[in-house]
Amino acid sequence: MKKILIASDHAGLNLKQEFIKNNPELPWEDLGPTDTNSVDYPDFAEKLATKLSQLSKSYPATEDAFKSEICGVLICGSGQGMAIKANRFPQIRAALCWSEEVAKLSREHNNANVLCLGARAVTPEVAQKILKTFLSSAFEGGRHSQRVAKL
Amino acid sequence: MKKILIASDHAGLNLKQEFIKNNPELPWEDLGPTDTNSVDYPDFAEKLATKLSQLSKSYPATEDAFKSEICGVLICGSGQGMAIKANRFPQIRAALCWSEEVAKLSREHNNANVLCLGARAVTPEVAQKILKTFLSSAFEGGRHSQRVAKL
Repeated sequence: MKKILIASDHAGLNLKQEFIKNNPELPWEDLGPTDTNSVDYPDFAEKLATKLSQLSKSYPATEDAFKSEICGVLICGSGQGMAIKANRFPQIRAALCWSEEVAKLSREHNNANVLCLGARAVTPEVAQKILKTFLSSAFEGGRHSQRVAKL
Repeated sequence: MKKILIASDHAGLNLKQEFIKNNPELPWEDLGPTDTNSVDYPDFAEKLATKLSQLSKSYPATEDAFKSEICGVLICGSGQGMAIKANRFPQIRAALCWSEEVAKLSREHNNANVLCLGARAVTPEVAQKILKTFLSSAFEGGRHSQRVAKL
């Protein structure tokens, strides 16, 4: 990856900081927040989705965004609100993941370019495995291309 | 509920039909498909999201859509593509759920009005429990209202 945008809310802050600390080899760009003061998750989903859309705007939605080596990670308590907000943006395909298998499928079938996680829904250990799986899985194309083009 | 719109793709067809058969007291409106021929999940997510948006268009996004007694259920293999597509629509808050707890939170915190399920991600028994929990849980409002208004 050339860049991984990451953002959270207060509930997701710890897991976000764990990711950055435990994976120093990855090209993180932290879009906030920086403390545990209560914030509204849509603000941070919008910030990340806007930036990722700008950075990848020269790529059609059907193209594997991973070729451009930029993706996003959004973390809140359940991950649900982050995924809803991020998917308001046409160039974003945000996948809420709770297992390695789900993360793998979201890349292979949906060409997801944003990983959403619920800090209260998965353990830090599982979250780390999901992250690695998401980043290392490739879009399968084929029959999935025409479906992703319709997203 | 006054109405529950439901749609799937070929992978979600069986679970959709199970829901309708096993819960005859619920006011289902089946938007397709009717057989297991391969289809593109975004077509059915769009169909349902469009209809639900029209039916609920007189309600602001912050109001509990359950008061209007109309919601949606979308089922594909993983549920992921359905959730991505449905959330393209501003009045839709589609929650991908894999447990009763996740379904409860999606109603309480995110005021979700569409339940997304992965037919290959949950057992039929868990899916049934998720459905019941989703339909019986209420939006908590309070601090969550300002966040949902930003979705």
